[in-house]
Amino acid sequence: MPEPIQRPPGTRDFYPLDLARRRYIENAWRTTSIRHGFDEIDGPTFEHTHLYAVKSGPGILSEIFQAFSGKDDAQRAQATAGHAPYALRPEFTPTLARMYAARAGQLPKPTKWFWQSSCFRAERQQRGRLREFLQWNCDILADDDHTRADVESIACCVDLLSTLGLTPQDCSVRFNHRGVLADILRACSVTDEHMDAAFILLDRREKLDNQALENQAFEFGLPQGDFPDFHQFLCRPRARNNATPTTIAQELANLPHGTAAHPSIAGPIVALDKALQNADIADWCTLDLNVARGLAYYTGMVFEVIVDNERAVAGGGRYDKLIETFAGPPTPAVGFGMGDVVLSLILQDKGLIPTDQQISRDLGLRTDAFVLSNGTPEADALVPNLLARLRRLGLNARRSYKTTKNIGKLLKDAADADARYALIIESTTELTLKDLDNNTQTRGQIDAQLDSITP
Amino acid sequence: MPEPIQRPPGTRDFYPLDLARRRYIENAWRTTSIRHGFDEIDGPTFEHTHLYAVKSGPGILSEIFQAFSGKDDAQRAQATAGHAPYALRPEFTPTLARMYAARAGQLPKPTKWFWQSSCFRAERQQRGRLREFLQWNCDILADDDHTRADVESIACCVDLLSTLGLTPQDCSVRFNHRGVLADILRACSVTDEHMDAAFILLDRREKLDNQALENQAFEFGLPQGDFPDFHQFLCRPRARNNATPTTIAQELANLPHGTAAHPSIAGPIVALDKALQNADIADWCTLDLNVARGLAYYTGMVFEVIVDNERAVAGGGRYDKLIETFAGPPTPAVGFGMGDVVLSLILQDKGLIPTDQQISRDLGLRTDAFVLSNGTPEADALVPNLLARLRRLGLNARRSYKTTKNIGKLLKDAADADARYALIIESTTELTLKDLDNNTQTRGQIDAQLDSITP
Repeated sequence: MPEPIQRPPGTRDFYPLDLARRRYIENAWRTTSIRHGFDEIDGPTFEHTHLYAVKSGPGILSEIFQAFSGKDDAQRAQATAGHAPYALRPEFTPTLARMYAARAGQLPKPTKWFWQSSCFRAERQQRGRLREFLQWNCDILADDDHTRADVESIACCVDLLSTLGLTPQDCSVRFNHRGVLADILRACSVTDEHMDAAFILLDRREKLDNQALENQAFEFGLPQGDFPDFHQFLCRPRARNNATPTTIAQELANLPHGTAAHPSIAGPIVALDKALQNADIADWCTLDLNVARGLAYYTGMVFEVIVDNERAVAGGGRYDKLIETFAGPPTPAVGFGMGDVVLSLILQDKGLIPTDQQISRDLGLRTDAFVLSNGTPEADALVPNLLARLRRLGLNARRSYKTTKNIGKLLKDAADADARYALIIESTTELTLKDLDNNTQTRGQIDAQLDSITP
Repeated sequence: MPEPIQRPPGTRDFYPLDLARRRYIENAWRTTSIRHGFDEIDGPTFEHTHLYAVKSGPGILSEIFQAFSGKDDAQRAQATAGHAPYALRPEFTPTLARMYAARAGQLPKPTKWFWQSSCFRAERQQRGRLREFLQWNCDILADDDHTRADVESIACCVDLLSTLGLTPQDCSVRFNHRGVLADILRACSVTDEHMDAAFILLDRREKLDNQALENQAFEFGLPQGDFPDFHQFLCRPRARNNATPTTIAQELANLPHGTAAHPSIAGPIVALDKALQNADIADWCTLDLNVARGLAYYTGMVFEVIVDNERAVAGGGRYDKLIETFAGPPTPAVGFGMGDVVLSLILQDKGLIPTDQQISRDLGLRTDAFVLSNGTPEADALVPNLLARLRRLGLNARRSYKTTKNIGKLLKDAADADARYALIIESTTELTLKDLDNNTQTRGQIDAQLDSITP
């Protein structure tokens, strides 16, 4: 007896009910994107490793799955050197940037794209983190009206949350602006050369105690004498009750050195806030000057969706320099991403996943016609033929595979399968049609019965 | 200026129209599977390399993309040795077998599963072959009535062809039976120990001339004296006009040594033929005793779908031993696979791909409402709000991003976008609703106008 082979750690098997639940989320992602005017695109599952290093630096190599052709000795040699030629995509944005750059001249302005499929990260498995997970991205490229695009992006994300039954009481979109944050940090005596390090530190601060924060700030090159202001900014209380969000005025009033008075700081925030109100999503959103987002590539508005003041379920922001990095023209861009793993846990915890029956019906998986024989040989022989006819009519048709001739038991199978109709073949010309939703039945000619259930 | 980075050779970028055409095929695969009572499953994109070697032997290692965690030195060392711990799936069947074996006891009998996603092969790129392609699989496990399951499998495949507009004049399902073929080969003096090699040779024979055939047969261990009969069998004419398929009687009459008379040979073929007729698909199918299928794991019925007597677009068969190989219980099984690459080329060559407009409508991508401003500041300001309302009503809504105030030009944009309705905001309370299908328009209160187009 051979040993069973396990799936790789951090990956998932989706049996039919698991997959239907996954499709429920994917379907919400897709229909929301389409409602908001995004067009779907896709790219390769693996790319040249270099593509990811361009965006994220060489450190990414140890966080991804590297791949090579088993046919190619030269490629294996590259793998040996720790830099295989290909990598499974850890995120889609580099592919999107490559694709946009390749056709920038012919694409509409703005270009609105969405994407959903698997991503891969070589990290240790833990709750909420897997090595293969699904990701949804929406991006708006080449809209010169940044505030408009920023808010369109947030609006699509909010609509998804709402579609799945979440409310502003469950979650908040915490937004900020990198330019504003940089101005504030400058007022805290952070110099431009240390700005990226400061953003990274801001992003990580909740995982560090004060001493570690100070050490890291020093390590990142912040002059030690300048630390106090920055430290004060870092340590501002963060968690807020979603039900009573801090107002923008309050938030700005908290700033050190009276920086709030400067129009370069208040301006973009006020414009964003007004546009969020125009789009009817202001009640979902709150300014959070602590939101920095770790990735170096953000250039303007940034946001995170936080559920129950705790779990981040989505995040995004403006990245106006990225397309140039991939050899494209200067292109304003904004987008967000959401994974399926944390989202599924949240929906589950909040009881927001519909029943399997409801999901099956919503996804068009419901059995329309469940075919039974009355047990006579001529009825038995007719089953495959009737199935073929039903399917040609566009109906989802199943049959009983039971050997029992007990019609009651067979009808119970039809009901368990959530079939709309049970069709009992009575002879070569007649069948009984049982409407399982209304619990009525009629016996009649096969042709007429089929006509009556044809969509 | 950075150098543009190309996508890996043999992979594809799908821009919106490319992806919509791909989704058209995927949608046909999915809805056909569901009509035929298959449930969808999925597994990891990469598996332990060992999983593929178990099914296909160690030779598979040079035909696949191997993968390893960039974080893990031990895994990189395995890659260096030519056997990385993971591999991108070259096919789904090993995952299916692993998943079935893991839960065989709890799964229904029969279990009918379908799957569709990407597969990966490390081969040279050529027309009809890519390194990443989409694959559709349907499998029926644990049905003790083999003929019934065999024909259900073929019927689903035929329904897909028919759904996409192909006819028996375009393509034929060429079926055979491995057991029958083995009996015939035995009659040609092939011994059981050489049977697998003989199947492989049959499968490859069209790529070889007679001398090469004879050499290979000898190399595979066929006694040279026994070659003539086998050779005669190999060289039987193969191509036939689909319009006048060889009858089963004619085909069996062609067999050497009068083997056709033996019930072990005629029996399964005649049973299959009868069941194909019962399922109303006999006109698509023709017995072809030359069909061997290369893969060693087939055990009974095998089939290929050949288009225009030339291109294989799908194939499958019975594999009753495979689940045991993956530590499961003895389980009869039959299934088939179809890729998207050859299928797309065929549909394109035959003009069977619907227009982009038709595909967009069929996939639910059509814009329901295209929002314009009449150019006044208060109308401009209302655009985001109206879009939000439309989307909350479940409508696919887009807006014009043009700066022109020429309504005629803007309406042309709406028509180019194949929008169902154009909505021109006239004031904060009124809009003009233009039905672009019927070329009618009305002006009225916003609420009433929205009511009239709410689904």
